[in-house]
Amino acid sequence: MAPKEIDGAEVAKHNSRENGVWIVVHDHVYDVTDFLDEHPGGAEIILRYAGKDATEEYDPIHPPEAIKDNLEPEKQLGPLKKGTLKEEPKAEEPASTPAATSTQVVTVQEPYVKPSLDQILSLHDFEAVARMTMSRRGWNYYSSGADDEITMRENYNAYQRVWFRPRVLRNVGTIDYSTKILGFDSSMPVYITATALGKLGHPEGEVCLTKAAHEHNVIQMIPTLASCSFDEMVDAAAPGQVQFLQLYVNSDRSRTRKIIKHAAKRGVKALFITVDAPQLGRREKDMRTKFEGNASAHQTKGGDAVQRDSGAARAISSFIDPGLCWNDIPELREAAGKMKVLLKGVQCWEDAVLAAEAGVDGIVLSNHGGRQLDFAPAAITILPEVVQQLNHRGLLFKADGTRFEILIDGGVRRATDVLKAVALGATAVGIGRPMIYAMSGYGTEGVSRALQILKDEFEMNMRLIGAPTLQHVNPSMVDISALRTPNVGPTAYATNYELMMPAGIKSKL
Amino acid sequence: MAPKEIDGAEVAKHNSRENGVWIVVHDHVYDVTDFLDEHPGGAEIILRYAGKDATEEYDPIHPPEAIKDNLEPEKQLGPLKKGTLKEEPKAEEPASTPAATSTQVVTVQEPYVKPSLDQILSLHDFEAVARMTMSRRGWNYYSSGADDEITMRENYNAYQRVWFRPRVLRNVGTIDYSTKILGFDSSMPVYITATALGKLGHPEGEVCLTKAAHEHNVIQMIPTLASCSFDEMVDAAAPGQVQFLQLYVNSDRSRTRKIIKHAAKRGVKALFITVDAPQLGRREKDMRTKFEGNASAHQTKGGDAVQRDSGAARAISSFIDPGLCWNDIPELREAAGKMKVLLKGVQCWEDAVLAAEAGVDGIVLSNHGGRQLDFAPAAITILPEVVQQLNHRGLLFKADGTRFEILIDGGVRRATDVLKAVALGATAVGIGRPMIYAMSGYGTEGVSRALQILKDEFEMNMRLIGAPTLQHVNPSMVDISALRTPNVGPTAYATNYELMMPAGIKSKL
Amino acid sequence: MAPKEIDGAEVAKHNSRENGVWIVVHDHVYDVTDFLDEHPGGAEIILRYAGKDATEEYDPIHPPEAIKDNLEPEKQLGPLKKGTLKEEPKAEEPASTPAATSTQVVTVQEPYVKPSLDQILSLHDFEAVARMTMSRRGWNYYSSGADDEITMRENYNAYQRVWFRPRVLRNVGTIDYSTKILGFDSSMPVYITATALGKLGHPEGEVCLTKAAHEHNVIQMIPTLASCSFDEMVDAAAPGQVQFLQLYVNSDRSRTRKIIKHAAKRGVKALFITVDAPQLGRREKDMRTKFEGNASAHQTKGGDAVQRDSGAARAISSFIDPGLCWNDIPELREAAGKMKVLLKGVQCWEDAVLAAEAGVDGIVLSNHGGRQLDFAPAAITILPEVVQQLNHRGLLFKADGTRFEILIDGGVRRATDVLKAVALGATAVGIGRPMIYAMSGYGTEGVSRALQILKDEFEMNMRLIGAPTLQHVNPSMVDISALRTPNVGPTAYATNYELMMPAGIKSKL
Amino acid sequence: MAPKEIDGAEVAKHNSRENGVWIVVHDHVYDVTDFLDEHPGGAEIILRYAGKDATEEYDPIHPPEAIKDNLEPEKQLGPLKKGTLKEEPKAEEPASTPAATSTQVVTVQEPYVKPSLDQILSLHDFEAVARMTMSRRGWNYYSSGADDEITMRENYNAYQRVWFRPRVLRNVGTIDYSTKILGFDSSMPVYITATALGKLGHPEGEVCLTKAAHEHNVIQMIPTLASCSFDEMVDAAAPGQVQFLQLYVNSDRSRTRKIIKHAAKRGVKALFITVDAPQLGRREKDMRTKFEGNASAHQTKGGDAVQRDSGAARAISSFIDPGLCWNDIPELREAAGKMKVLLKGVQCWEDAVLAAEAGVDGIVLSNHGGRQLDFAPAAITILPEVVQQLNHRGLLFKADGTRFEILIDGGVRRATDVLKAVALGATAVGIGRPMIYAMSGYGTEGVSRALQILKDEFEMNMRLIGAPTLQHVNPSMVDISALRTPNVGPTAYATNYELMMPAGIKSKL
Repeated sequence: MAPKEIDGAEVAKHNSRENGVWIVVHDHVYDVTDFLDEHPGGAEIILRYAGKDATEEYDPIHPPEAIKDNLEPEKQLGPLKKGTLKEEPKAEEPASTPAATSTQVVTVQEPYVKPSLDQILSLHDFEAVARMTMSRRGWNYYSSGADDEITMRENYNAYQRVWFRPRVLRNVGTIDYSTKILGFDSSMPVYITATALGKLGHPEGEVCLTKAAHEHNVIQMIPTLASCSFDEMVDAAAPGQVQFLQLYVNSDRSRTRKIIKHAAKRGVKALFITVDAPQLGRREKDMRTKFEGNASAHQTKGGDAVQRDSGAARAISSFIDPGLCWNDIPELREAAGKMKVLLKGVQCWEDAVLAAEAGVDGIVLSNHGGRQLDFAPAAITILPEVVQQLNHRGLLFKADGTRFEILIDGGVRRATDVLKAVALGATAVGIGRPMIYAMSGYGTEGVSRALQILKDEFEMNMRLIGAPTLQHVNPSMVDISALRTPNVGPTAYATNYELMMPAGIKSKL
Repeated sequence: MAPKEIDGAEVAKHNSRENGVWIVVHDHVYDVTDFLDEHPGGAEIILRYAGKDATEEYDPIHPPEAIKDNLEPEKQLGPLKKGTLKEEPKAEEPASTPAATSTQVVTVQEPYVKPSLDQILSLHDFEAVARMTMSRRGWNYYSSGADDEITMRENYNAYQRVWFRPRVLRNVGTIDYSTKILGFDSSMPVYITATALGKLGHPEGEVCLTKAAHEHNVIQMIPTLASCSFDEMVDAAAPGQVQFLQLYVNSDRSRTRKIIKHAAKRGVKALFITVDAPQLGRREKDMRTKFEGNASAHQTKGGDAVQRDSGAARAISSFIDPGLCWNDIPELREAAGKMKVLLKGVQCWEDAVLAAEAGVDGIVLSNHGGRQLDFAPAAITILPEVVQQLNHRGLLFKADGTRFEILIDGGVRRATDVLKAVALGATAVGIGRPMIYAMSGYGTEGVSRALQILKDEFEMNMRLIGAPTLQHVNPSMVDISALRTPNVGPTAYATNYELMMPAGIKSKL
Repeated sequence: MAPKEIDGAEVAKHNSRENGVWIVVHDHVYDVTDFLDEHPGGAEIILRYAGKDATEEYDPIHPPEAIKDNLEPEKQLGPLKKGTLKEEPKAEEPASTPAATSTQVVTVQEPYVKPSLDQILSLHDFEAVARMTMSRRGWNYYSSGADDEITMRENYNAYQRVWFRPRVLRNVGTIDYSTKILGFDSSMPVYITATALGKLGHPEGEVCLTKAAHEHNVIQMIPTLASCSFDEMVDAAAPGQVQFLQLYVNSDRSRTRKIIKHAAKRGVKALFITVDAPQLGRREKDMRTKFEGNASAHQTKGGDAVQRDSGAARAISSFIDPGLCWNDIPELREAAGKMKVLLKGVQCWEDAVLAAEAGVDGIVLSNHGGRQLDFAPAAITILPEVVQQLNHRGLLFKADGTRFEILIDGGVRRATDVLKAVALGATAVGIGRPMIYAMSGYGTEGVSRALQILKDEFEMNMRLIGAPTLQHVNPSMVDISALRTPNVGPTAYATNYELMMPAGIKSKL
Repeated sequence: MAPKEIDGAEVAKHNSRENGVWIVVHDHVYDVTDFLDEHPGGAEIILRYAGKDATEEYDPIHPPEAIKDNLEPEKQLGPLKKGTLKEEPKAEEPASTPAATSTQVVTVQEPYVKPSLDQILSLHDFEAVARMTMSRRGWNYYSSGADDEITMRENYNAYQRVWFRPRVLRNVGTIDYSTKILGFDSSMPVYITATALGKLGHPEGEVCLTKAAHEHNVIQMIPTLASCSFDEMVDAAAPGQVQFLQLYVNSDRSRTRKIIKHAAKRGVKALFITVDAPQLGRREKDMRTKFEGNASAHQTKGGDAVQRDSGAARAISSFIDPGLCWNDIPELREAAGKMKVLLKGVQCWEDAVLAAEAGVDGIVLSNHGGRQLDFAPAAITILPEVVQQLNHRGLLFKADGTRFEILIDGGVRRATDVLKAVALGATAVGIGRPMIYAMSGYGTEGVSRALQILKDEFEMNMRLIGAPTLQHVNPSMVDISALRTPNVGPTAYATNYELMMPAGIKSKL
C-alpha cells in the first residue's frame, strides 16, 4: 500500500518548537521535534529548516540513511506531495573568485570556462579549477588551515627546500615505481589519505576516490567523518581492493571498539588512529563562512553535541577523546585483531620512538594538513631526524625483519615531492586535498587523471634522477641543507600593517 | 546659586594673548591667559583654540579634572550659555583607509560596515577594524613605531620563526592555563600592558581595560601617560583586582616618590620602572599627522615642557630623567615598600644580570613596542640567552626560592605566541596594542572578547602541543633554530627605489 | 620540361585518409597518404593540414629538404598553380603581452615599438624584446622550464648569491679576456650552447648564431634538434671556425655512429653527449600552447614516434636511448676519433669523478636550462665541490698535463656571472636562451650585439675586480658564503592560495 | 667700448661644420668650429646645438668659466642681441613619476605639491621629493648604479641586517656625538662625500654642500668631477672650514701633481685617491636617458675624449689611469706634502692591509655608491674583517699612536646606520646621494636640514642604546650574526619572467 502523501502546506505549519518541527529530506517528511536536542549538530541548524526542505543542507554532511537510522518509524511521516512545498528564493552565494595572492595579480576569463580534463597538466591545475567552481563553503572547508595557515603553507613550502642530486648514465630504460605499503601492493608510493565531508566537493562523495583508487591500484584511507557511509565506501571497492581506515577514538570506547570490529569484518587492512586531534582545530577562513552542519553520524549517534558554529572545536571534542594516551594503545591494538595499527599525526622523533616501542606497525608523520596546530612542523622537515633516531635505537626494523613503517602526508603536489620523501626514508606519501580538488572538478574521472599525472611524473622524474626503481631513491639523492629554514609567508599582520610613505606620497588603494 | 552663564560671543573675543585667552571645555569657560606658558603641551596648541571650544582636543589626552586642578578658581569663569558659541566647520579628517601593504592588494566593502563582535575571530581582526574605524590621529599614534618601524614589525615576525615540537597521546582532557605572575593569580600567562592615551581609541579610555581585566581575571598594568587618571583606573577596579603600575621616573625625584607612595596606598602590587625611554622615540608615521596634544597631567603639573610637535622627543625628556641609572634603583626600591619592583625595557642579557644583581624582582624584556630604538631586538629573540645567562650565574632563582621573574612584551597576536615565550622561560606576556584596538572598536566588551579569544586559543593549542598545564610547556616543545634570522621587510628605501625596466618597457603607476 | 601545375581545388579534395592526404609545402604539392603513419610527429598534425598549405607549420621545425628526403619521387606531385588554394583566415594568435610578474607591475607603450639595436644595453633587454615580439608558441617553447620552473629560475638566481672580492691598485690598463676552450681559441670564456628549433625565433634559424659566432670568435655548439640541418650550419661557418656538436644518443646506435662520423668528417672539433635527458622534460608553459610539431628529422628518419602532444616526453624517448650508461662511453669515444668527447648534463660531483675516470675530455655541469628535472641544482652551486673532489682525487689534470675541462651553462645574463664561474674553476660558460632571444629580435646582428655587450662587460668588470687576465680570476676573488641558500620564488601553489582576510575586508581582484 | 651685439639670425646660420658652428652660452656667442674635435665630450653633442643657445645643456656639467678658458679670445665673438634668437619648442621631458616598486603600489597627490621643509622628517623624504621634482636626467644620473643595481641596493640593505644590543640605566643626560676625522673636528661621525655634477640637482651646485657643511661643522669632500670649479668650492668655505679632496689620478701625472699642489696651496686637508674606478661604470638606468654631457673640465682640458654616449666607460678611461697601482702611491704621497692621503674604494681586507703597509693615513671602504662593480660587497659587511685583520697584524695603530683611519660610505640613511659602522670600527661615514637629494629639493637649506635631522637622530639613538659618547659605541653594542646573508632583490630577470598560470587562469596586465 502506497503511503499517504503529505501536503507541503501541512509541513510548513510545523516550523517551530511550539508548532512541532517537520522537515523534508529527499521528498520524505520527518517529525524531528523530539530529536532536536539529540541532534549531534545542535538544534539550531534544524530549526532553521523547520517546515522546509532541508535536503540540500543535509546531503553533503550526512550519510544517506542517517536520518532513518536515527528516527523511530512513527516519526518518518511519509512522502511529500510533489510540488506542494514552496521553495524559497536562495540567498545568492558569494561567487568563488580567485583572490589576489601574496605574490601576484591574476585575472580570470569572463565568463569562466572550466578547462577540459586534457588541459589539466598538474595537481595545481585541479586546485585552480576547484577554487573557481566549488561552492564557497566547500572551498573554504577544504582549503583552510589553522590560525594563520602558516603550517598549512609550510607543508608545501618545505618540499621546495629539498633539492635533488641527480645521477646520470644509469640505465633508466625501464622504470618501476611500484611499492608495498604495509605489505600491500601499490602502483606507486602514494595513497589517498582521509579527508572529511567529500560531498561538499562532489555529490557522489568519497566513493569517487574509491573507484579511482582501484583503477590505478592505489590504496584509499577511509575517513571517519566522510559524507558517504563507511559501508558505502567499502561496497564501492572492487574485490581485493585494499582499504585502510582512519579513526577518531571516541570517549565511549565501546563505540570505537564496535567500529574497529566492523572494519575488520569488512576487510579493512589497517587502522590509522588519529593522534593529532584531541580537539578539532579552528580554521578561521572556514569559520568566516559560518558553515553550519555536522559531521558524519557514524560517530555521533545518540546525541553527542557536535556544533560547527564558532565554538565547534570545543563541542566536537565531546566525541573525540582528549584523554586518549599511550596507555590506551594496547587495547586498541587488541581490538584491531589482524589489522595493522598505525598512529597518524606523530610530529616529533620522541613520539616516533614511543610509537615503535609501543609496538604499533608504523606512524604517519602528519600535522593534519595544517588544520590543527599552527606552527607544527611540516612532516618532511622532521622525517630525517625521525629516521635517524629510530635507526639509532634499533627500532627501524622489527623483530620479524619488517620495517617500522613511516608514512607522511601534507603539502604534496608533485611526484618529485614524493621522491624526496622516499629518499629520506618514507615508505609512501598520503595525498588529500589535491584528490578532493580533482574530485570536485571532475568526479571519479578527475581523481583518475590526477593519479595518472602522478604516474607520468614518477616515470619522468625517476629517469631524470637516475633511479630505475624506488630502491635507488636513497638519501644521497637529495640535498637537504636548506631544509630547516622555513620562510613564513604573509599573514594578517602584514595585511593590517600600513606601509610608511615618504612625505608627499601616499599609498594607493 | 546658579553661576552666571557666559555668552559665546564674549568667549570668542578672547582669542589671543593680546585679548586674553578663554577656552571652553565641557561647556565651561576658562581663562587660560596666565596659564599659557605653563601648559605642559606648549602655548601654541592652546592658542589654536583661543575663543573656541577645545573639548574635543582636550578630552583624549587629559584626565578629566586636569584643567580644574591646574587653574585657580577665579580663572574658572563659569558655564557657557548653550548654543551661543558658533561651531566652526571641521576640517575633514583624512579617511582611514587600508593602505596597500607590502605584500598584497586589499579592498574594502563600500560603505564599510563594522563587523559584529561575533565575527571577530582573532586579535588580527580587531586591528583591521581599528584601522578602518579609528580617527587617523588615533590610528597613527597607536600603530606607529620608531624610524622605519623595523623593530616594531620584527616584534611580530620573530614569533613566526619559532616552531612547535608537539607531543601526542598525552591526556589532555583537562587543560589548565592559569598561572601566577609575581605571586598573583592570573587566569592565563598574559597581562594587559601599559599603553598611553587610551581616549584616542575610545571615549571611556583605559577603564575599559580595567573592567575587562577583572572579568577575565588578568592583571592590568596602569600606564603613567594614560588618558584616564590613575585614580580613575584604580577606582574602576573590582575589590581584590590586582593592578600594576608602569612608571617613568621624573627628573624631580620627589614627584616620582609621591607617585610611588600614592600607588602603594591605593593597593598597586608592583611597580614597573621603564628603562628603555630616557627620551621618547620619534615615530614618523605619527608625526606626519601633526598630533598636537600633551600627555597625562599626572607627570606634568606645574610646567614641564611637554611638546608633541616634531621636536616632541627632546621636549618630553624634561620630565623623564635621562640620567636615571643603576645607582638610583635602591632608592626606588625603598620607596616602593612592599610593592614588587621590576625593570621594564631590558634588552640584552648583560642588563638582565645587572638587574638580578641589583635585587629587583624581575624584568620585562621589551623594546617599548618598537616605538623607541629601531633595530632593537625583539624580546623573544633574546629570551633564550637571558634565561641561560641568568641560570648559569645562579640568578634565576632568588634566595627565598622564588623566581627572578622574566616577563616579555611586543608583537603578540596569538596564544601560540605566548606559549612559545612560556616555553622559553617567560612567566607571562604583556599585550598592548591588540587590547587598545579591541577597546577602540568595541569598548570593554571588545577587550573582553579579545581575552576570551586568547583563552580559547590557549585551551586548543595546549591540547594540540600535548601540555595539560603550563608546567608542561618547556624548551623541548619549541624549535628555535630559525629564530636568529630576522628578515627586514620593505622600508622607504624600497618605496623610493625605481625598479629598472628593460628596453621598451616602462613601469606602471 | 616544366612539370604540370596542380590546381588548388584538386588539392583541397584530398583532405582525409579516405580521400587521400595532399599537402602543400613551399608551393609544391605532396601526397603524404602513405607517409601518415611513418611521420615522426604523428599522423594527427598532418591530417590537420590535409588539403591545405602546411608551409608555415612545416618550416620552423623541419630542415628544408626533409620532406623530399622522406617521400618517394612519385609522391612529390609537382608545383601548385599559384593563387588557386584558398587561404583560411588564421586564428588570431594570442598577443604576446608582458605578464604581471611576481614582483611588480609593468606596462607597455601602446603600440609596442621594438627598440632599436643601440637601445639594447644588456642581455636582459633582448629577453624583454623577445617576449613582446615573438610568436607565443616560440616564446613558450624557449622560455619554459620543467614542472614549476624552479630550477630554471634558480639557474639565474644562484649567480646572484656569489659576491666579488675586488682588488684595487693593480695595473689594469690592458685587459685580456681571451681563453682556450678544449684547446681552441675563444675571444672570451663563453660559447653559444645548443638550443633546439631556432626557426621558431627567426626564419633563418641557427645559422644566425653560426655567423655571429664567427664575427666574435666564439665557438658554437650545434644542436641535434636544430631547425637548420647540421650541414647548413657547418656550411655557414667560415674557414677555420670552430664548431662543437651536441648529441642525443639514439637507441639505434648505428644511427648515432653515422652522425658522429659525419660530424668528424665535416670538421667538428668536439662532441657533447647529452646525459641529462634520457626522456625529454615536461614543460607545462609550453604544453599549454599545444605546440604540435616535431623535432629535427635528423634523428627521426624512418618513423620513430615523436609526438609533442601532452604525452610528448614518453614518445620522444623512443629515439633518445634511456638505457645509455657508462658502459657505452668507450664505444662513443672510439667512434669520435680525434674529436674531443664531453658529457653534457653532469649534476653532482660523484658523476664528475666517474666521467674523469671514464677518460672523457671534460664535462658540462648543466641541468638542461632547467627544462628537465625540477629541483636539479644550478650548475654554479655544485661547481665548487666538483672542482674540489676532482682535485682531491688527482683527476683535475690529465696525464698529458691538460686540464679535465669543466664547462657550465644555465642562467647566465652578465659577464660578471661568467667571471664568477671562471673564478670557481670553470673554463667557460655556455649561453643559450639569451642568444636565441637576441636572434629572435634582430637576427645575426642581434646575436653579434649580444656578444659585443658581453665583451664590453668583460673589459669593464675585469678592470673593476683587478684582474688583467683570466688567470687572475681565482677563487679568492669571490665570496660564496651565501651560495647554498636557494630561495624558491612563487609557484602555482601561491597563485592558488587565497590569502586570509580579516573581518570586514576582502581581497581585491 | 661696448662690444658689438650679434644678431640671432647670424648665429642661426652657423649650424654645421660646413657653415661653421656658433653657439650661445649665457647670452654670449662663441665660434667653436675649430674646437669641435677637441671637445672632451665629443663633437656630436656640440653639433646638436650648432646655431642655437646651449646654455641649458652647458650649465650643469661645466664649471662656468670653462668655455672662456678653452677658447682663444678671437673665438669669443661677443654678446647676443637679446630676443633675436628664436627658441625652439622643447621636447617634453618625461615626467618624473614614482615607479611601481618591487614591493608596493604607490600613488601621488595630483598635482604634486612639494612638501615644505618642516614636513621632511628623514633622509628618505628628501629622496622621495627629489624623485618627484628633479629632471629625469638628473634623477637618473644620481639614482642609478652598475648593471642590475644589486650592489647599490645591498649598500642600504646590509645595514638592515645589523641589530643593536642596547644598554639601559646608564646616565644619558648628556649626549656627545662629536668626533675627530683624521684629527679634524667634526660635529658628528659623518662627512659629505664626493658626488659629481651637482648642478644637475640644483643650479648653485656643490657650493650648497660647502655652506651647509660649515653651518653644521661637518667636513665636505670636494669631488673631481663637480659642476662647480674646485676654487669656487674652496672660496665658498668659511675661514677655518675643513675640506678634503677626492682625486681621480690622470694618466698624465703632471696634471695630477698640479691638482694636488693647488689643493695643498688652497688649504685642503686630505686627499682621497679613488682606487675603485680605473674605468667608470656602466649605469644602464642612466644610459637609457642618453645623457650627453661631459665631466668637469678640470681634468679634461686639452682634448681627452670623454664621451658619455653608450660607450662612455671606455672613453673616460683615457683620463683616469687604469694603470695606477701600488707603486704609484709613494709619488702621490710625496706630492701631497702635509695633506693626509687616503685610498678611497678599498673592498677587501687584503687591500686594507696593503694600504696600511704602504703608509697611507687611512682608507675608505667603498664601492663607489654601487656605481662601479655590481656584486661588490657593501662596505659595512667587510668592515668587521678589515678591522680584525688590521688589528691582528698590528696595523690598526700607527707608530705615532694615531689610528689608521677607516672610513666607509654607501647606503647610509639614518644615524643608526652610522652608529652601527662606528660600533664596528669606522671613524666616520661618508654620505653622498642623500645630501644631493636634499640639495636638489631645497638647496643649502635642505642640506642643512638633512644634517640637523642626523644630529637629532644621533642624540636620540645614542640615548636609546645607552652610549653618552661615541667611545661607548663599541662592538658589544651590535649583533652582526645576520650580516652575511645578503638578499638580492628583484632584477630584470624577474621582470622578464612570466609567471606560470594554472589552467583556466591567465595573468593580469
